[in-house]
Amino acid sequence: MENNNSNGGYVVMTRSFEAVVAAITSLDGDAQEQARQRQQELTKPAGSLGMLETLAVQLAGITGNPLPSVERRAVIVMAGDHGVAAEGVSAFPSAVTPQMVLNFLGGGAAINALARQVEARVVVVDVGVAAELQHPDLISRKVALGAANMAQGPALTRDQALAAIQVGIDVLDEQFAQGLDLVATGDMGIGNTTAASAITAALTGTPVSAVTGYGTGIDEAQREHKVAVIERALAINAPDAADPLDVLAKVGGLEIAGLTGVILGAASHRVPVVIDGFISGAAALVAARLCPQARYYMIAGHRSVERGHQIILQELGLTPLIDLQLRLGEGTGAALAMGIVAAAARAHREMATFAEAAVSNRDDAGE
Amino acid sequence: MENNNSNGGYVVMTRSFEAVVAAITSLDGDAQEQARQRQQELTKPAGSLGMLETLAVQLAGITGNPLPSVERRAVIVMAGDHGVAAEGVSAFPSAVTPQMVLNFLGGGAAINALARQVEARVVVVDVGVAAELQHPDLISRKVALGAANMAQGPALTRDQALAAIQVGIDVLDEQFAQGLDLVATGDMGIGNTTAASAITAALTGTPVSAVTGYGTGIDEAQREHKVAVIERALAINAPDAADPLDVLAKVGGLEIAGLTGVILGAASHRVPVVIDGFISGAAALVAARLCPQARYYMIAGHRSVERGHQIILQELGLTPLIDLQLRLGEGTGAALAMGIVAAAARAHREMATFAEAAVSNRDDAGE
Repeated sequence: MENNNSNGGYVVMTRSFEAVVAAITSLDGDAQEQARQRQQELTKPAGSLGMLETLAVQLAGITGNPLPSVERRAVIVMAGDHGVAAEGVSAFPSAVTPQMVLNFLGGGAAINALARQVEARVVVVDVGVAAELQHPDLISRKVALGAANMAQGPALTRDQALAAIQVGIDVLDEQFAQGLDLVATGDMGIGNTTAASAITAALTGTPVSAVTGYGTGIDEAQREHKVAVIERALAINAPDAADPLDVLAKVGGLEIAGLTGVILGAASHRVPVVIDGFISGAAALVAARLCPQARYYMIAGHRSVERGHQIILQELGLTPLIDLQLRLGEGTGAALAMGIVAAAARAHREMATFAEAAVSNRDDAGE
Repeated sequence: MENNNSNGGYVVMTRSFEAVVAAITSLDGDAQEQARQRQQELTKPAGSLGMLETLAVQLAGITGNPLPSVERRAVIVMAGDHGVAAEGVSAFPSAVTPQMVLNFLGGGAAINALARQVEARVVVVDVGVAAELQHPDLISRKVALGAANMAQGPALTRDQALAAIQVGIDVLDEQFAQGLDLVATGDMGIGNTTAASAITAALTGTPVSAVTGYGTGIDEAQREHKVAVIERALAINAPDAADPLDVLAKVGGLEIAGLTGVILGAASHRVPVVIDGFISGAAALVAARLCPQARYYMIAGHRSVERGHQIILQELGLTPLIDLQLRLGEGTGAALAMGIVAAAARAHREMATFAEAAVSNRDDAGE
């Protein structure tokens, strides 16, 4: 079946959610072992490049290439609105979501500047903004005009959640067809830290207050209100922690579901995926619950200020590359981390070995 | 007076150490305030870019430009040997120092790969390698064939230390003349974690064991031996903690002194300087003791695995940008951090304001 929403002339076959999950396999142990061996032979004390070495080995395992390259890079920013914003959980009004989408398309947002710095293209997707949006560079795949207010009922139907995941899969497939070695996840959606907190609480069994932070900048009284709203949403919807799709639908959001699709799609194509902060982390948590092997294709871009993000990182067993006290989203932390990932791949690929450079290794006869 | 060692056709006037120190002033408060104001107006929640915002303000204060640019970048790698290597303090023989210098010049070392990633030129300086080295791209400013064995007497005379600082000043001045917006420090010298530990212990009064680590990969028994060697060096030389030059000469090294000159030179030209790990940190500590205002021009590139580095960071009041468990030196951590600094400057300069992008700020009337 051809995808009627193909972009830029690329016609991509739509792959079903089930087919994508089934295509996600374990990492390539041979490629990892060859990369590990090479790291021992490069002109540096063994282990002295720390996490850059670990990253190089992971990239080899993901790609199946002992000398991986991550030159073709994209940040996929999924945008969607949240009915729960009406409960006063955010410092900004929902009108900011479409305004920021246009800012992304105009190149004026933080993610644009940071993506330029790491030479990644920015792909902006409307999967559920609560406003009509048109722009020649916008990928319009609106599933609904925002998620419903989770404090009053389910944010999404199960079908809407699946449709948004499919959008993520389709967009990833289109980007893959254009050439993609490394992808980062980004989000925009006023109210989406509320959804991410609810997902994290529901899937990990952590008390809501321990996963709920200050978002774009609310104060402590507003945070307590936000906690109460999330507790109400969980009580009303009673999401089933054993059913990640149920959690995603009832207390999630369209851009989060879209990112879950991006992550699963990337893993299925053996493309390493750099996870941004709390919102992307919630999407990654859902992806890992849907397909535990997807976790091995993830790189944690950064540690967000949002307290719930730490819980997600622990749950996924991921160590973030950057900790710069960011709390913006958009994929900004992941974009910065792409520079680190690219550096790791470059050092792995371009460094000389002890033999090539005629440098004495520690086991050689000394001076 | 013309500098007879001018490089690449650039004739640079030699500036004296005293003149350089006298030229280091406080940061530009007006530029900082304008940068701070701009950060409030950019299309993001205030403070949400965390340390990227702090960095942008610091860059404005350093350069005196509210919209600073850091496009012209260099990593200056100073190489020198250490007679104390004869005491068996390192996992590698001293022969590796000149071998690695040639590897830098051939483009095959980690610093070359990482500098290419962040588009920085690599400047390699022989300020005291214990071997004759020739290469068209090597800046040869050898003060001596290595520092003497500090376990038996002073590593350097005071004049040698001053001459090596002058090399750093001269090289920085030459690079500045070629165009330099951001500089990173790097080192090469087998045995130089021993010198850095000794400097740190002497200048901060910290017990030697607390500032002495595993270097390029010695084991715990060898580390205990290294501690004993450093304690002997401090006992024999009795460096005066109130006289940073005395400490630098007696238990330092030529490449460390050269980096002190680079750091002071950068500060005097209002060029931000990204400090690498433990060795560069020791040079930065000496620079800050010689001229406390120099500290404001420093950016801590990363947190090294070397335990003494943490003491230096605390002493200087610097928060590192990256913590990737690196312990290589060469400027590798600083080079990675240059990508973060460039991203901070780019976001600050290129992002749209709320007004420009027609995005509602939190104080605007919400919906």
